[in-house]
Amino acid sequence: MIIDCHGHYTTAPRAHTDWRSAQKEAFAAGITPPWYPDIPDADIRASVEGSQLKLMAERGIDLTIFSPRASAMEHHVGDEAVSARWAQVSNDLIARVTALYPGSFAGVCQLPQSPGVPIERSIPELRRCVTELGFVGCNLNPDPSGGHWTAPPLTDRSWYPFYEAMCELAVPAMVHVSGVTNPVFHATGSHYLNADTTAFMQFLQADLFKDFPELQLVIPHGGGAVPYHWGRFRGLAEMLGRPPLTEAVMGNVSFDTCVYHQPGIDLLFTVIEPENILFGSEMIGAVRGIDPQTGHYFDDTRRYVDALGLSPAVRDQVYEHNARRIYPRLGAGGRSAEP
Amino acid sequence: MIIDCHGHYTTAPRAHTDWRSAQKEAFAAGITPPWYPDIPDADIRASVEGSQLKLMAERGIDLTIFSPRASAMEHHVGDEAVSARWAQVSNDLIARVTALYPGSFAGVCQLPQSPGVPIERSIPELRRCVTELGFVGCNLNPDPSGGHWTAPPLTDRSWYPFYEAMCELAVPAMVHVSGVTNPVFHATGSHYLNADTTAFMQFLQADLFKDFPELQLVIPHGGGAVPYHWGRFRGLAEMLGRPPLTEAVMGNVSFDTCVYHQPGIDLLFTVIEPENILFGSEMIGAVRGIDPQTGHYFDDTRRYVDALGLSPAVRDQVYEHNARRIYPRLGAGGRSAEP
Repeated sequence: MIIDCHGHYTTAPRAHTDWRSAQKEAFAAGITPPWYPDIPDADIRASVEGSQLKLMAERGIDLTIFSPRASAMEHHVGDEAVSARWAQVSNDLIARVTALYPGSFAGVCQLPQSPGVPIERSIPELRRCVTELGFVGCNLNPDPSGGHWTAPPLTDRSWYPFYEAMCELAVPAMVHVSGVTNPVFHATGSHYLNADTTAFMQFLQADLFKDFPELQLVIPHGGGAVPYHWGRFRGLAEMLGRPPLTEAVMGNVSFDTCVYHQPGIDLLFTVIEPENILFGSEMIGAVRGIDPQTGHYFDDTRRYVDALGLSPAVRDQVYEHNARRIYPRLGAGGRSAEP
Repeated sequence: MIIDCHGHYTTAPRAHTDWRSAQKEAFAAGITPPWYPDIPDADIRASVEGSQLKLMAERGIDLTIFSPRASAMEHHVGDEAVSARWAQVSNDLIARVTALYPGSFAGVCQLPQSPGVPIERSIPELRRCVTELGFVGCNLNPDPSGGHWTAPPLTDRSWYPFYEAMCELAVPAMVHVSGVTNPVFHATGSHYLNADTTAFMQFLQADLFKDFPELQLVIPHGGGAVPYHWGRFRGLAEMLGRPPLTEAVMGNVSFDTCVYHQPGIDLLFTVIEPENILFGSEMIGAVRGIDPQTGHYFDDTRRYVDALGLSPAVRDQVYEHNARRIYPRLGAGGRSAEP
């Protein structure tokens, strides 16, 4: 069985994205947003059957851990109420996808973060998504300001109440930023990767995982710049008087395989232990084209992983068992625990 | 001959760094800073002979392109006058090193950047360093705010007057940020790498090199996250309707080899053409320890490059000829054009 830990609902029905535009316009105008539309099941089916489900079938992906579109979380837009409502309707829509295709999708929620609003205020939505909608994790944005980096580091104690809730609910977070307003950054070209690297370095510097030994965090996009600079990070840990990374960080942090060429995947598996790698593609996401050098989709990351010639045990670890360990609610969600 | 394109004067004499502390204190107190101290040649010799020069000899590095300590540029500290004076004395000190050891060091200058101050104001110091001190390049900081990213992208026209001066003087810039005040970032652990990735994506998105076909920019630290995500960047260029990277970016952008482990260097040379790779180590810099996995210094990057088994022609390109092409004033500075 193959589990893709990183899929976003980038093909959500037009009525949903139109409502978001109306919500933003209403906020700007200081008026009440319109009612959220009725979206028929047929529209939801149409939004995934010719895209995610088709590509999953073609690529042999059995289950995608599925969350609202990352760049559209836009925690920097509006205020707490705007973020709360947008998270709620986006998560409800994910729940409808997982209800229609329970064998193919497991839900991960968007949080109602908003710059300057304490993270505690995101706990009720996390709890609702996990206990009422059957979600298995969340996306945690380390920079709700959208590229101005005004929130404290993820290791700051102000984030701790949220980690307590995650541990209580037995769900991991993927550390995932959203769109940017700062023109120096490009969302998928630099901001996402920078956030991945930034988060890892924060974890290296602090004792977060001493305080939360059960906490599990997934750093997407292959860990940003980290595996390529693995020697740098090992050396920095030593220079800063920190314990080795394998001891102090890698018990609680995993990287996905969203690295869109063979040499990158080769490097990832050369330096990172297989237990810390979760298969992921972010299909349909940041890079949608076909690589002229290979004739295949850039984001068809299964091809790169298959080409590694992993042993069956390691292959199953990366494709399935690691995901079941990091997302323990996958097994409890009516999805078969083993193929 | 081996040229290291990336060395900082991290071992500058105590009198110099003490003066900097006094300058910052004077600025905070609103008083005039003390006179810059007389630093005897003996102190300068002592500051490099047991460190950079010793390690260069051990590692077989003939010439280091040498600039003031990057993390100490601190363009966010003080104001324009503080930055101007600090850049001047730091560059003068580099000039003394290059005068004492003209065969071993070539100078690269720190600019007197300051948040919100137009980059034109840095041109006189660039001109002074190149025409009077014999420097061969400069370090250009894309984020003088120190981690708040308040300056426009490097492709914005506000930077153009500086690029005009660089082209006129025939000097490249290394894109290099400095220390950070934003607690989410660690200078050498995330901010440096993020800046590298950010700058590359800016170059991908814009037509800077159409406007400046002669401009040469070096992205340090192996290009940040870029080579590891080379497929992502190739795919993004295509999605954004940009020309291929080899055409639109790589005629003007090079990466150094400051990647502190063998698998990272292997990847760099797998995906990036040798003409775009400059040997560099950033010795003595961000990572000073010995890798317990190899028994050698993390930043002894020559070992990794040598281990690639490059052909003599490619080896010479990476170790010497690319540097002479990108830094044309190296040849004119009294340093032998060929070994």
